[in-house]
Amino acid sequence: MESSGRSTLVDGIGLLFTADPFREEIEDAALVMEDGVVRWIGRSATAPAADARIDAEGRAVIPGFVDSHAHLVFAGDRTAEFAARMAGERYSAGGIATTVAATREASVPELVATTAALVTEMTAQGTTTFEIKSGYGLTVDSERRSLEIASQFTPETTYLGAHVVPPGTSADDYVRTVTGPMLDACAPHAKWVDVFCERGAFDEDQSREILGAGIKSGLHARIHANQLGEGPGVRIACDLGAASADHCTHLSDDDVTALASSGVVATLLPGAEFSTRSPYPDARRLLDAGATVALATDCNPGSSFTTSMPFCVALAVREMRMTPAEAVRAATRGGAQALRRRDVGTLRVGAKADLVMLDAPSYVHLAYRPGVPLVSQVWRAGRRVV
Amino acid sequence: MESSGRSTLVDGIGLLFTADPFREEIEDAALVMEDGVVRWIGRSATAPAADARIDAEGRAVIPGFVDSHAHLVFAGDRTAEFAARMAGERYSAGGIATTVAATREASVPELVATTAALVTEMTAQGTTTFEIKSGYGLTVDSERRSLEIASQFTPETTYLGAHVVPPGTSADDYVRTVTGPMLDACAPHAKWVDVFCERGAFDEDQSREILGAGIKSGLHARIHANQLGEGPGVRIACDLGAASADHCTHLSDDDVTALASSGVVATLLPGAEFSTRSPYPDARRLLDAGATVALATDCNPGSSFTTSMPFCVALAVREMRMTPAEAVRAATRGGAQALRRRDVGTLRVGAKADLVMLDAPSYVHLAYRPGVPLVSQVWRAGRRVV
Ligand SMILES: [Zn+2]
Ligand SMILES: [Zn+2]
Repeated sequence: MESSGRSTLVDGIGLLFTADPFREEIEDAALVMEDGVVRWIGRSATAPAADARIDAEGRAVIPGFVDSHAHLVFAGDRTAEFAARMAGERYSAGGIATTVAATREASVPELVATTAALVTEMTAQGTTTFEIKSGYGLTVDSERRSLEIASQFTPETTYLGAHVVPPGTSADDYVRTVTGPMLDACAPHAKWVDVFCERGAFDEDQSREILGAGIKSGLHARIHANQLGEGPGVRIACDLGAASADHCTHLSDDDVTALASSGVVATLLPGAEFSTRSPYPDARRLLDAGATVALATDCNPGSSFTTSMPFCVALAVREMRMTPAEAVRAATRGGAQALRRRDVGTLRVGAKADLVMLDAPSYVHLAYRPGVPLVSQVWRAGRRVV
Repeated sequence: MESSGRSTLVDGIGLLFTADPFREEIEDAALVMEDGVVRWIGRSATAPAADARIDAEGRAVIPGFVDSHAHLVFAGDRTAEFAARMAGERYSAGGIATTVAATREASVPELVATTAALVTEMTAQGTTTFEIKSGYGLTVDSERRSLEIASQFTPETTYLGAHVVPPGTSADDYVRTVTGPMLDACAPHAKWVDVFCERGAFDEDQSREILGAGIKSGLHARIHANQLGEGPGVRIACDLGAASADHCTHLSDDDVTALASSGVVATLLPGAEFSTRSPYPDARRLLDAGATVALATDCNPGSSFTTSMPFCVALAVREMRMTPAEAVRAATRGGAQALRRRDVGTLRVGAKADLVMLDAPSYVHLAYRPGVPLVSQVWRAGRRVV
């Protein structure tokens, strides 16, 4: 047990990607973990002794992925909608209503079971920290219930009552609910407040009001911004000091400048562009401007039903011209920055011992070997979970 | 043991995709296998009794994938070349020389071990029938050795001495070797003969000569055709009655017409376009013209280092506008047709009991849930292998 002070040495690591800018890649590396944290990192040849030893046999090790954007509490399935869209029909935001109806109808044990299954999938693919949003309940009780469920799985819970205005409600009435009784019911179970700021969802004034109310209740802001077209989302994120602006598919030059200078993380979700056959965000423009980029799955049953961070890394390299190192950095350290977490996403002394061993000699293989399940072993806080 | 006449019933199949045009999809399905073959298919409610029973609990079942194009016998790795290409350098066919040098240098046990590892990956992802090509030896002895190794894993072995002209040899001399002593050494270990017919590799006359010599030695023809530009490859395939023309990325109208009327399978390899950032073949044009389309991985360390047929299905839907049913059909029945196999690729009474159970209610999820390892159980000839 790591908690009893027993130390474990992982040596023979062919290539260690730490995501730590101080020393991002180490060949022939080793790492010691104890009490759930990293105690030592360096070359295998100079590694200290430990109570237990694991030989990586030349495999690569990376930090556990940090998936900072996931909608995991839902019921039902939208297979038919997906197949129709792939056959050429236009993406319709109305599809969310299907999931909302199924989620409201589902029992708590049902929702816990489907969420747990997705978390198991994530873990098997190397994700050790993840965010979960509400947003498929859209009533005071069902949003609170979703966040209570999310809290069983992660501290990174996000109140997204403002996902869409539910049918049969006026936008003004709904914003009053989201900023009033729904916020009161949800805030105790959430760390973050989010809004889907987009034409057809919530406009600039509504988005500012919703995030502002959340902040006043002690939550921290993040935002769905600029997915389907240019708009005020990124500007709002920068004004309010949000941790992250998510999607960032359609950005003006001012948006890019604002992201680069504000410290707001640009979280790119290429799984959504893959599954809606949409143009990808311009990651190079953001990186070259100096913005911090994160990669996340956007796992949801409508527009991106993947839990796979390796898949997002492969897409980032192929479709968004990120280098493999930029992509893995964005999927680990970038995600941690988007959640304002300093204890995860980077392998350095004192960080949580969240690590992934790949069945490959390099992290590059996550892009070089697309679709292949390369994650072979996963530790979370020093404990082997895969 | 199925070989002793013990029968196994798999029932509770949410959706069975048989790939059999007679009855391609069956809801609430069941299947009985015995002695390695399928004995009965129908609705769960009417299933006969069997010696053993497996409850699919609503999961989908599909035929095992048939990967009809894979280059698995090689040594070494081309990570740096991949990373350079993704950073914007042009794809250089010269990269093959790296793999040829490493393959020649490797011992038989080394080559067997790397091939076995790739076969294990394939199996874990639902592939139950696969082809293996030589083509990284390019000497009489090393090509023969590659095919001997391939024969340990599959009866679908392909002599691809004509992968590229090795450095230091004239093309004319090399074609004489490929059609002479190398063919004599390789034919006993091969079922198929293949040639890389492309500008920079083998031209029309050379390709016809190489395939013709192979056919005369009792091999059956297949061809790498029209990958990097239009050319004579597809025309040659149709003239010689090849089983398959592979890649088909750049086709003239005449090529499409010829494929549709000849019965030559058009095998599309979208992993190669993904990993070389190239335009995808136009699958819709082929399907709409009535051609038979197969999907395969093209697994090789240079241009498509994936073993994942689920990944190829997801790409086919997203990038080549195939429907999920067309894509799964191409990855099962299409691959079998490309290998002229009638016993695999389709689940019907009398066929080999090669089947894959998905952790999903429908085969559509192979595209709807990209990157997620959905293959949960695999049977080959009635025997559980995953
Ligand atoms: Zn989202
Ligand atoms: Zn090939």
